[in-house]
Amino acid sequence: MVKYSVIGSVGYVCGEMLRMLVAHPDVELVSLLDSYGYDLPCWEHFPHLKGFYDNKIEELTEENVRAAAKASDVVFIQVPSGDVTKWAKIILEEDAGIIDIGADIRFRDASVWEKWYGAKHPDPQLTHDAVYCIPEIMRDLAKGKKVIANPGCYPTASTLALYPLLKEDAIVENTIVIDAKSGFTGAGRRPAMNKLITEAENNFNAYALGGSHRHTPEIEQNIAYITGKDLMKPETWQFINFQPHLLPTVRGIEITAYATLNKEYTNEELYELYSKCYENEPFVKVYPSDKPVCTKWAYGTNFCMMTPTYDARTHRLIISSVIDNIGKGAAGQAIQNMNIMFDMPETTGILFPAIYP
Amino acid sequence: MVKYSVIGSVGYVCGEMLRMLVAHPDVELVSLLDSYGYDLPCWEHFPHLKGFYDNKIEELTEENVRAAAKASDVVFIQVPSGDVTKWAKIILEEDAGIIDIGADIRFRDASVWEKWYGAKHPDPQLTHDAVYCIPEIMRDLAKGKKVIANPGCYPTASTLALYPLLKEDAIVENTIVIDAKSGFTGAGRRPAMNKLITEAENNFNAYALGGSHRHTPEIEQNIAYITGKDLMKPETWQFINFQPHLLPTVRGIEITAYATLNKEYTNEELYELYSKCYENEPFVKVYPSDKPVCTKWAYGTNFCMMTPTYDARTHRLIISSVIDNIGKGAAGQAIQNMNIMFDMPETTGILFPAIYP
Amino acid sequence: MVKYSVIGSVGYVCGEMLRMLVAHPDVELVSLLDSYGYDLPCWEHFPHLKGFYDNKIEELTEENVRAAAKASDVVFIQVPSGDVTKWAKIILEEDAGIIDIGADIRFRDASVWEKWYGAKHPDPQLTHDAVYCIPEIMRDLAKGKKVIANPGCYPTASTLALYPLLKEDAIVENTIVIDAKSGFTGAGRRPAMNKLITEAENNFNAYALGGSHRHTPEIEQNIAYITGKDLMKPETWQFINFQPHLLPTVRGIEITAYATLNKEYTNEELYELYSKCYENEPFVKVYPSDKPVCTKWAYGTNFCMMTPTYDARTHRLIISSVIDNIGKGAAGQAIQNMNIMFDMPETTGILFPAIYP
Amino acid sequence: MVKYSVIGSVGYVCGEMLRMLVAHPDVELVSLLDSYGYDLPCWEHFPHLKGFYDNKIEELTEENVRAAAKASDVVFIQVPSGDVTKWAKIILEEDAGIIDIGADIRFRDASVWEKWYGAKHPDPQLTHDAVYCIPEIMRDLAKGKKVIANPGCYPTASTLALYPLLKEDAIVENTIVIDAKSGFTGAGRRPAMNKLITEAENNFNAYALGGSHRHTPEIEQNIAYITGKDLMKPETWQFINFQPHLLPTVRGIEITAYATLNKEYTNEELYELYSKCYENEPFVKVYPSDKPVCTKWAYGTNFCMMTPTYDARTHRLIISSVIDNIGKGAAGQAIQNMNIMFDMPETTGILFPAIYP
Repeated sequence: MVKYSVIGSVGYVCGEMLRMLVAHPDVELVSLLDSYGYDLPCWEHFPHLKGFYDNKIEELTEENVRAAAKASDVVFIQVPSGDVTKWAKIILEEDAGIIDIGADIRFRDASVWEKWYGAKHPDPQLTHDAVYCIPEIMRDLAKGKKVIANPGCYPTASTLALYPLLKEDAIVENTIVIDAKSGFTGAGRRPAMNKLITEAENNFNAYALGGSHRHTPEIEQNIAYITGKDLMKPETWQFINFQPHLLPTVRGIEITAYATLNKEYTNEELYELYSKCYENEPFVKVYPSDKPVCTKWAYGTNFCMMTPTYDARTHRLIISSVIDNIGKGAAGQAIQNMNIMFDMPETTGILFPAIYP
Repeated sequence: MVKYSVIGSVGYVCGEMLRMLVAHPDVELVSLLDSYGYDLPCWEHFPHLKGFYDNKIEELTEENVRAAAKASDVVFIQVPSGDVTKWAKIILEEDAGIIDIGADIRFRDASVWEKWYGAKHPDPQLTHDAVYCIPEIMRDLAKGKKVIANPGCYPTASTLALYPLLKEDAIVENTIVIDAKSGFTGAGRRPAMNKLITEAENNFNAYALGGSHRHTPEIEQNIAYITGKDLMKPETWQFINFQPHLLPTVRGIEITAYATLNKEYTNEELYELYSKCYENEPFVKVYPSDKPVCTKWAYGTNFCMMTPTYDARTHRLIISSVIDNIGKGAAGQAIQNMNIMFDMPETTGILFPAIYP
Repeated sequence: MVKYSVIGSVGYVCGEMLRMLVAHPDVELVSLLDSYGYDLPCWEHFPHLKGFYDNKIEELTEENVRAAAKASDVVFIQVPSGDVTKWAKIILEEDAGIIDIGADIRFRDASVWEKWYGAKHPDPQLTHDAVYCIPEIMRDLAKGKKVIANPGCYPTASTLALYPLLKEDAIVENTIVIDAKSGFTGAGRRPAMNKLITEAENNFNAYALGGSHRHTPEIEQNIAYITGKDLMKPETWQFINFQPHLLPTVRGIEITAYATLNKEYTNEELYELYSKCYENEPFVKVYPSDKPVCTKWAYGTNFCMMTPTYDARTHRLIISSVIDNIGKGAAGQAIQNMNIMFDMPETTGILFPAIYP
Repeated sequence: MVKYSVIGSVGYVCGEMLRMLVAHPDVELVSLLDSYGYDLPCWEHFPHLKGFYDNKIEELTEENVRAAAKASDVVFIQVPSGDVTKWAKIILEEDAGIIDIGADIRFRDASVWEKWYGAKHPDPQLTHDAVYCIPEIMRDLAKGKKVIANPGCYPTASTLALYPLLKEDAIVENTIVIDAKSGFTGAGRRPAMNKLITEAENNFNAYALGGSHRHTPEIEQNIAYITGKDLMKPETWQFINFQPHLLPTVRGIEITAYATLNKEYTNEELYELYSKCYENEPFVKVYPSDKPVCTKWAYGTNFCMMTPTYDARTHRLIISSVIDNIGKGAAGQAIQNMNIMFDMPETTGILFPAIYP
């Protein structure tokens, strides 16, 4: 029985983790901590969980974190950028594992984080030592490690979509364009005018226009990893275009990736290549070119689904890949990484289909 | 007073045209014709128009078309692919003008249509002689003409987004990628399972995956026109990637276009370039890079709004452009073209802001 | 040319008023004032209005209000409960008219307001003297008056639905139940968690459960007025059940009213009765029992549409009535009342159909 | 291990049952049959289930039904009104149990069905003998029975909301008004114009206006049962108003019920009364008056959640009750009834929280 706590527990990711873990036979909740909304029963924040968890949210203090860590095998963390290392230190002193949902320790070279997040990294050694893990590609790195950086939502959908062809060395450098779309849970639970249903419904728009979104270098680091570049030499990585948009939906990410290929494929050959690459992966599903994947097929799940195609006129790959941004894009993958950390079967508790429609 | 009739009048485009024309001071409706839902008052199809129009839908027969054309100055046509020329012949015999909402006569060279629509073109001479007109770029071509092909929705948003830089010869050939998203009115009013609210809400997906959408060559023809290529030699045109997606919204198109530029720009310089290019265009609005345009800003209007940016890392333009697919993308532009045809000010009846939120 | 200003000008009602007034030939905007978001061009708050209005939002100060009132014929006010009289005093000193969108001066007897709003009324004389006006029922009261209280959204839809039968004295006292549903623009533009698209989409719930909504006594006052009760003796009025709910939509109110009738009707007789009652009203449309009205038919308009039916088994009226809550329910009716105040045709600028779909 | 088959298997209810049963440890699927869409793998109809079920849909023929029934312990049926008895006969011959999702056998007295469904009942004896079972109220009736009529969605939410006060004999006869709202899955998966996202989004309307919805007598039968009336004497039952509306959502029913009470309550007393009544029911949750239930709290589940209140001014109960129409309103309750039929714990496989948000 793995005992777990959560720091940053009134947002959507924790709510989803709690929902999913109802079905996990081998975990036990210790503490929920947050600097907001504490001293309330957790069902005040998550009314759908009434009757499933009795915990009160505890105030996020050093003392409470230490007590939680002492009683836990692992602590999930989701806090604002730059705040992880403070809590990580305490947790590691108490010898619990860490799965960080945020971006603080996703980069091996702290300078990449510093450039894109515009601040000095509080603990370059920690981010250097942490393991970033998309299980389908990097699970071996994570075995036996105590600190796992859970990947971002866009990078998960994007990297899994490019991986089979990157592995084949079939993508021409500097030609990758990723046009990404996310539902509003990706923007968090804090009220803001642009997230109101009145403003968001029947609307669609780009944001971080022009290449400034912080998930860009995370995808570039993944590409560098897959193509064998040195992760400590970011100056050798290739650049991509990554442009996100906001969907008027609750959940769901779709990315359409374009890349010039150095070989010719038919749609059928691409389908075969992808199916073979992922044939042993329970959470990746590949569809033929006449079945473009729908975000709704992955609603509430840990699946990544994709439809690869080839445009022979332009010699470009066009692939559509979908995940649930708070499923495989956050909570689901965090549980998958926890399963890896504690040597449980990866699918434990998270192999269930989408709610549809 | 311009007298008009509509062939294909129970769908969304005709409904929108009727709505807009309530405010047009110089038009008068003669006949509404359709092969479906006829003999009913038009408000049975458009309950929001009850009290504004008394017309019954008439059956679409040769006799009725001839009578309508005889009494009209112009006939708007929206019929299935391949059916226009049959009605066009009758209308032209009665000396009325034609504005065709569909794609039958959009290509100067019928062979392009034949390749993408998979059929023999019924009247190559008519499509050769017709005028295709995005007014902001081609209005001079349309003056005094009797047959105007109204542009497609995606090509309108895409072409207006690329035009200022194509004119400058700043776009590197064969580098254009257009990722497009449309609300469901773009898919018409005929019931189908994927359009049900149960299937479509909270969903998002690509369609015509891999470069097979029929608006692709229409955009390529527009690029060829702007860059001075011979429209009768399609083999000289450049290829683009055009990939459409379905938004869970009623109206609205957003396209994000990517293209490698052969000059360096700042975001501010792009904003200036675009603003200057469109400074006299009442229906185009340009926004600075920190204001990505929203489909909702154009809801129910004839506007095209756009935010151009430059990604210096990849030397690529990233531009977001929005229209209402049944406004500027169909009904609004058709009225704008009618205004041109009859030498009325282009803005007559259609210069009103979006309903928001 | 009627000159107007608006106090409380960054919310949805002002945005809608400005949108509608683009089409009004006889008005001119003087000033937009607010205590929030001032010193910005109004299109920063209403991007869809860019190019239509050049005004900057001015800070809401006594000095600015006085200057605006001096230059205006009428000032529209929408401020928090209890704040109207402060501004009203200045405006009346400058001899401009007032149309108040809020609830401060809707009750003839200040004690009703005090009971439901839980505060001492700041100016009982003003509310006593003001005119409350649903034009279809009370327009004669408003002629020549300087201070008009614009009705609430729910009371407008509810009162117009009951009026024809109340006039006939056909409704049994104390049997009225009104089940009301509103889109989220009715809850304003200020961010709050329950209004986020993530929380609101695919959701529906009652609020103010158990009879506590403040529009209840407004409807009761209207019923008292129509049935000839003394508005200064609220203890003689009948009680109703009024229960509101939140729809996951942007705009639109539907109310279903139930009431025991003291006469028998067929559905057809009810349709006749209602049609006759409203035959000269351009903004009320009655539909037969097999055409239940849809909120979407009134989207963005000043119409109230209704379908009355009779359940012979239970001897009860069941009527469905719809409006756009920020159209006929706020901005549209305010303009209608302005037209009355200045002796213009009531339909000026606001007789246009819904945008559909 | 209970072996089950499904007749009518390409619609939303079967899809939901299959999704839920993935988590049920003691069932095994035998056959999926339908007269539409057969010979396709079931994931063509339910792409989210790819990898979870390998079954092909079989054609709905007498032969196939007999084979399925022979190999099954229970057959779930969802077919058009009037068609059940044909299949029931075969299934009973093969000694399998039946859970009917439709309305054919919901009434003890076939004359009620005949009046509301406008046809001669094909098998009055079967409907007389069948057991109608909302488990929280009638589970004892169902023990050991072979034919269970699964309740309708609206009647489930309505009856559970009224049950505690009906049991107390606290509701004045002939005063019940139920205003009901349902998401579009309640209208099935067959394409129709009013269900298109373009028509349905941002819309809301009543339907079956005036008391004609077929769930009315089902609720009246439930009230008669709870209050001790003879189910074979429908002329002694009380009449209610039941008025449904269509929500622009995928799932979710909310009903607001109004009824004059013959005793006075505070909100707190009602909360106690309801909490006590349902304290041993795992699928019913009661909330205090300041927490109106949300359809989203029950999304994808077998829960019924409710908030009872009392309006002292009008002496009326106002209660809001929510379910997921294809969860507790159909598939979930069908599984609950199957668990009863086979003496498994009622919660097996269906005690999981909503997906939220």
